[in-house]
Amino acid sequence: MTRWTLPPDRIPDAWFNVVPHLPAPPQPPLHPVTREPVGPDDLAPLFPMALIGQEVSAEPWIDVPGEVLDILRLWRPTPLQRAVRLEEALGTPARIYFKDESVSPAGSHKPNTAVPQAFYNAKEGIARLTTETGAGQWGTALAFACAQFDLDLQVYMVRASYEQKPYRRVAMETWGGAVVASPVGEPGHPGSLGAAISDAVRDCVGRDDTHYALGSVLNHVLLHQTVIGLEAREQLELAGERLPDVVIASCGGGSNLGGIAFPFVPDAGVRLLAVEPASCPTLTKGRFDYDFGDTAGLTPLMPMYTLGHDFVPPSIHAGGLRYHGDSPLVSALVRDGRMAAVAYPQGPVFDAAVQFARLEGRIPAPECAHAIRATIDEALAAKEAGEERVILFNYSGHGFLDLAAYDDHLNGRLPAEPE
Amino acid sequence: MTRWTLPPDRIPDAWFNVVPHLPAPPQPPLHPVTREPVGPDDLAPLFPMALIGQEVSAEPWIDVPGEVLDILRLWRPTPLQRAVRLEEALGTPARIYFKDESVSPAGSHKPNTAVPQAFYNAKEGIARLTTETGAGQWGTALAFACAQFDLDLQVYMVRASYEQKPYRRVAMETWGGAVVASPVGEPGHPGSLGAAISDAVRDCVGRDDTHYALGSVLNHVLLHQTVIGLEAREQLELAGERLPDVVIASCGGGSNLGGIAFPFVPDAGVRLLAVEPASCPTLTKGRFDYDFGDTAGLTPLMPMYTLGHDFVPPSIHAGGLRYHGDSPLVSALVRDGRMAAVAYPQGPVFDAAVQFARLEGRIPAPECAHAIRATIDEALAAKEAGEERVILFNYSGHGFLDLAAYDDHLNGRLPAEPE
Repeated sequence: MTRWTLPPDRIPDAWFNVVPHLPAPPQPPLHPVTREPVGPDDLAPLFPMALIGQEVSAEPWIDVPGEVLDILRLWRPTPLQRAVRLEEALGTPARIYFKDESVSPAGSHKPNTAVPQAFYNAKEGIARLTTETGAGQWGTALAFACAQFDLDLQVYMVRASYEQKPYRRVAMETWGGAVVASPVGEPGHPGSLGAAISDAVRDCVGRDDTHYALGSVLNHVLLHQTVIGLEAREQLELAGERLPDVVIASCGGGSNLGGIAFPFVPDAGVRLLAVEPASCPTLTKGRFDYDFGDTAGLTPLMPMYTLGHDFVPPSIHAGGLRYHGDSPLVSALVRDGRMAAVAYPQGPVFDAAVQFARLEGRIPAPECAHAIRATIDEALAAKEAGEERVILFNYSGHGFLDLAAYDDHLNGRLPAEPE
Repeated sequence: MTRWTLPPDRIPDAWFNVVPHLPAPPQPPLHPVTREPVGPDDLAPLFPMALIGQEVSAEPWIDVPGEVLDILRLWRPTPLQRAVRLEEALGTPARIYFKDESVSPAGSHKPNTAVPQAFYNAKEGIARLTTETGAGQWGTALAFACAQFDLDLQVYMVRASYEQKPYRRVAMETWGGAVVASPVGEPGHPGSLGAAISDAVRDCVGRDDTHYALGSVLNHVLLHQTVIGLEAREQLELAGERLPDVVIASCGGGSNLGGIAFPFVPDAGVRLLAVEPASCPTLTKGRFDYDFGDTAGLTPLMPMYTLGHDFVPPSIHAGGLRYHGDSPLVSALVRDGRMAAVAYPQGPVFDAAVQFARLEGRIPAPECAHAIRATIDEALAAKEAGEERVILFNYSGHGFLDLAAYDDHLNGRLPAEPE
């Protein structure tokens, strides 16, 4: 047996909150002007109260509303798959499992939080959401979710992606979302995720009918993603495994990583590994400090690893990993030694992606390929050590909308990067 | 409950052969030159003996080799889903189920036959396959399958697609396939499926290490696809349904249609409906006659509905449905009244696709959208009649590589077509 499914009534009905399991209590976000801890009132112009409550909650479990489960059931539970052909090719004694989040409508893990975010906003009477998107994974997920709850959506898409990668824009429009290039009013500017966040927040503030939605970084976002790890845990048991030795995921803002890894934080023997691009090495080369989430300094200051909110990462194909900061929860786990981090340049990442595609049949998104690179290296280390390690990684999204990146890789057009 | 999965050990271990259930015995294909019935020796330069045997078999069931099951298990059994939100929006008493073939590595039903074709060729010592592809669905599926059995692959891709839709070419190359534009040596020619078949057959004939593979039309191809209908049958029972009232699928060469519909042919009360594009109305406006499968007249003459082997359909986004002929098995069922056919122009097809995407979250391939159009009309007819009909359709592939088509539709750029 190489694939484990669960029936649709076995979607976790509560999210796992990692906060009670952190080595140290989390530091609060600070108001961008007063530098005092932000309270619910500060966040209310942006988010519904239910999400603000989740953002600061210390409850170990938080119920998933039935209306959210009804939508998640369109594709969840997702399969857990064992990469037997990859294991054989590597000649490793490791057993490699991956959680396949690519089967969602938007093709990635992002709808796991887009759906509850749309739900809570609709429930509190909000009619319209604004958001930013880089390559478009988050924007497509939120467009899908807004269509489910009859919410209007305005997406600010990083201009470079808007112009060069029109397909995800079209997907957003197919689901009914409106998309404009960011920064607004600066036609020559290629844009950045930080600048697009500023645009989306500006559009939201002062409009009673409008809230803002973020696809990563924040505590409530990572909370919603824990269905991934919770399902994987149950499926690993079905596969006859007790616990994984290591859990691996790519890390941009931290949401697919938190989603699969957080439910294993209490298990001290399980190693957790974040994989980031060498060109945007937030966890491996950034500093832990309070910093803004966006370029213009409109968001609260968050305690996190950061390369500086004015850092502009070079253009790489893994657009979803080009973020100067990182989830405060992930940052705290790395700072306190509960989670490790590693960085890879694009070349070895795409080598791993092509090897995986030819052996396992699936073409991963460039973001996801980072996790595959680290998984292969972990499996080779297990071979070197002669150890039967159990590796779990998050197959966070497919690469059907990223094939131009593969074209560049296969034809030697990826720019050289320092190793 | 709105989604039914099956464990990986419940993939059908035998294919369903519709031949014993046809109203009349099938007519044989004829040799292109002698016009005598073709024998195994005539086909041996193109296909392995195992597939030739399946092409002419009258056995009711044919075993699926274990090596094939091992690969199919990477994504099969596929889910059966109920489109509850679509039902509610239509206000229909019909219950709408769809079989989700989009979860395969190539994103469509095509790997169901690509895998056994690659397997049988590898088993008989063939080192290299040639094939044609239009938009690229079949080529990607065969590239994936050849990677599993270490076969080289040469794909002749219709030039218009090769130049305008590079993403599926890149997917083929990622899996290790070689791709050239067809017709070879005629740089200004946009190409056609029939011409690409001629190119692929020419490359194969006379090379002992090389065989040819076809992604639709032939009996053995449709045989391999019957895992779809067999699984759906079992899943419908899990859903508490006895049998569907109607089974609907789009039809180009007939493989996704045959795959879901053939296992229901013996059930006289189940209606079967083929959906084709109005611009290539093979079943609805063609004639039943012997005709060539390709433009150059290199293939055997097949008894089928045809628009003439020199018919060049207008350029529509559902490239997979642009074929002058049709499966002889499907053609026989339509001629003898066991299956009905309907044709739609692009506009209403894309209206249905967008409606489905917004309600059910999935963006279908343009080919698949034809089945959705007919499903919606069937559900509205059930509403009109006040009948609780059970509708099963084949969600044959996702549209992540077809978003340019949606862009055209959403922005009013689809050319006008006669209704």
